[in-house]
Amino acid sequence: MEQYRTPIALDQVRITDELYGPMLRLVAERVLPYQWEALNDRVPGTEKSHCLDNFRVAAGDLPGRHQGAIFQDTDLYKWLEAVAYCIANGTGKHLLPLAQEAAVLIARAQEPDGYLNTYITIECPEKRWSNLAEGHELYGAGHLIEAAVAYYRATGEKLLLDTAQRFADLIDRTFGAEDGKCHGYPGHQEIELALVKLYRATGEKRYLHLADYFIRQRGQKPNYLLAEMAGRKGRNVFPEFCEYDDKYAQTHLSPLEQTTAEGHAVRAVYMYSAMADLALELGDPEMARAAETLYNNIVQRRMYITGGIGSSGKLERFTADFDLPNDRMYCESCASIGLMMFAQRMAALTGEARYYDTVELALSNTVLAGISREGDRYFYVNPLEVWPDNCLPSTSMSHVKPVRQRGAPVHRPHRRRRAAVSDRRHLRHDHQRRLEHRHLPGRSP
Amino acid sequence: MEQYRTPIALDQVRITDELYGPMLRLVAERVLPYQWEALNDRVPGTEKSHCLDNFRVAAGDLPGRHQGAIFQDTDLYKWLEAVAYCIANGTGKHLLPLAQEAAVLIARAQEPDGYLNTYITIECPEKRWSNLAEGHELYGAGHLIEAAVAYYRATGEKLLLDTAQRFADLIDRTFGAEDGKCHGYPGHQEIELALVKLYRATGEKRYLHLADYFIRQRGQKPNYLLAEMAGRKGRNVFPEFCEYDDKYAQTHLSPLEQTTAEGHAVRAVYMYSAMADLALELGDPEMARAAETLYNNIVQRRMYITGGIGSSGKLERFTADFDLPNDRMYCESCASIGLMMFAQRMAALTGEARYYDTVELALSNTVLAGISREGDRYFYVNPLEVWPDNCLPSTSMSHVKPVRQRGAPVHRPHRRRRAAVSDRRHLRHDHQRRLEHRHLPGRSP
Repeated sequence: MEQYRTPIALDQVRITDELYGPMLRLVAERVLPYQWEALNDRVPGTEKSHCLDNFRVAAGDLPGRHQGAIFQDTDLYKWLEAVAYCIANGTGKHLLPLAQEAAVLIARAQEPDGYLNTYITIECPEKRWSNLAEGHELYGAGHLIEAAVAYYRATGEKLLLDTAQRFADLIDRTFGAEDGKCHGYPGHQEIELALVKLYRATGEKRYLHLADYFIRQRGQKPNYLLAEMAGRKGRNVFPEFCEYDDKYAQTHLSPLEQTTAEGHAVRAVYMYSAMADLALELGDPEMARAAETLYNNIVQRRMYITGGIGSSGKLERFTADFDLPNDRMYCESCASIGLMMFAQRMAALTGEARYYDTVELALSNTVLAGISREGDRYFYVNPLEVWPDNCLPSTSMSHVKPVRQRGAPVHRPHRRRRAAVSDRRHLRHDHQRRLEHRHLPGRSP
Repeated sequence: MEQYRTPIALDQVRITDELYGPMLRLVAERVLPYQWEALNDRVPGTEKSHCLDNFRVAAGDLPGRHQGAIFQDTDLYKWLEAVAYCIANGTGKHLLPLAQEAAVLIARAQEPDGYLNTYITIECPEKRWSNLAEGHELYGAGHLIEAAVAYYRATGEKLLLDTAQRFADLIDRTFGAEDGKCHGYPGHQEIELALVKLYRATGEKRYLHLADYFIRQRGQKPNYLLAEMAGRKGRNVFPEFCEYDDKYAQTHLSPLEQTTAEGHAVRAVYMYSAMADLALELGDPEMARAAETLYNNIVQRRMYITGGIGSSGKLERFTADFDLPNDRMYCESCASIGLMMFAQRMAALTGEARYYDTVELALSNTVLAGISREGDRYFYVNPLEVWPDNCLPSTSMSHVKPVRQRGAPVHRPHRRRRAAVSDRRHLRHDHQRRLEHRHLPGRSP
């Protein structure tokens, strides 16, 4: 196991590349302010987000019901994380007042015991943790933690970090292998990698061990998520979950025993990222081997030449080795972002530069191509071949769009946060040497 | 408009072809007796049908709840129709006692006012006709009528015909353009062509006019089915109906104005078949032109070289002109059966032999290939290209099976009834001349 490596702090790097430099400024100057308006339902002619209003209702500032998706809170968290990176990279100082307003509102929507999810708080407080497979409570907690850590690192401001920690502590008291705790784990992985970040920001080892519990509990028999789904007798939040199976959320085996990339691609690469993080932080060779095996399966057998992953339009998932159709694949931008995250962590774990070939592949071809130069239109699905006339709604090709769309808000901040963060990852230190994984013109100390 | 043509009665035709002759005997001697056992839940190791038991519960013979699909009744109707054709073609006399038992049971499950649907009768009698988009009540009525007419023609037995007529009369009193009647129409077309058969068997013109109403009411604004779906706010019986649109059930325009084959392929060709029937029976040139236009769109632009139709795996539907992928299409056997039915009726309407090229194409390639020589395994989906390793559950290729399956009971009798009926359609009379659309060795008067 190689030694721990500290990435160069974001505020120490400046990207001067002619393509990515202007994109980063575009994010800070146009995209994030526009998204703030959208999250506040102040953009005429677009579908309402309800995101900020949900927090206001949960905080008691507004009357009303929860509106929008059950994971709508994460739009604000992703936006805040992107803002934090822009503040750190020097492009986003002007966003500080908005970010501070958001952080205060989030803190006020938190319940006294630390719980934070506006859907549950407003609509059904008695149903906490009762639908882990679909409920996104732990997924939301993960994005809150990521935002809080990024914001703390960018500004030194602790309010959001305190909020995130209080929620993380509640989760730590609620979930675990011990008797009396819930033996569940997230239906959508995300919190695992966030908890590693929270450990790094706070030094509190319990977050690392909670992440490790979530990984190691996954795939144990009896299958927690399948049992929960069976109890709902098909009354699912997401209609497409009528085809839910144990591979979908990577619960078919212990992650340590998994050798092929399976199921929902975003869930998968988020989990693999956390596994690489945990292998590094805990010095766990078994976890490192599992992550390496999964990485190799992806890049050697289940990844497109564009860095796209996820061959199935249905359920946005991996399929089989070398099943890489040109036209009907999903290959969502978010999955390639997750693949970049995974590859970056494998590079940190091993010190090997080759993982950055995958980062570059996915960034240059799929992630970058997913966004228009103006920053306001998106490809969510990234096929190699498109017949525009055949991309019809309510058919097996309905996920494929021949032109970039005004995307669902949930994904916009996500891609923004990646665009904003990507500069940091290209330079890393370790104790002995300086590792340069740089593909872009820029400067650092 | 050409004059009315009478098909040669089934009992006047004997198929001596070396391929189809033995298949017809196989249906009568092995398949239909086996299916009777399956419908009675007496086949060990297979999923229970519950079909006969549902009728027994509705008739008061058994306690209990409805089980199985909401359209489970139609399995028995399709089985009875196939039995009737086998009796007529001389292969199925031994099935008469079983058929008579089924007919008596069906009659006893009928409600006093003529209503007949075991799911509604057992589970929610107050919800009659409240979910036309999904409920299959009219679809079930159609299959009951088809079975009753076939059984009457094969045996002269009127019990089932009386049952069907009482239900048809209730439907006639319930639905129509007049004030005070429900202005709805079937979510799954089938009853339209069945009502034409009922008219032919009984001479009662009101059935013809009810079929004509169902066709002409379809696609009128406001859209009846979409309004009904909206009122359910996503609480659908079928999860995949979250992507329901007006083309799915051919309600986007009046059928008379439709020029392209759209939506769910089976629904479409059943409706087009009824349109051809009505054009003939009512001497309606507008209806004839619409049917001809839709037929040409299919065979010139939306049909595979195998006679398969329905390019979209999602929602089993038509897509766009010349969108004919080799691997991911649906092309369900039932849709090609429906296409045969449509083409046969176009031949009857016009007297032109060319429509039988399509019948032969679909029969020889898709319908026939859908059944194993032993008669016990089925392809439901009929692609041109299959990569077995990629046909994974819960993916966009999950509908494709690399080997024939033990199919869902709903579709087995369906294919049996086509195999049993196909011989009749190869010979037709009209008043002036004898039309031979014969591709098979056989004899007739």
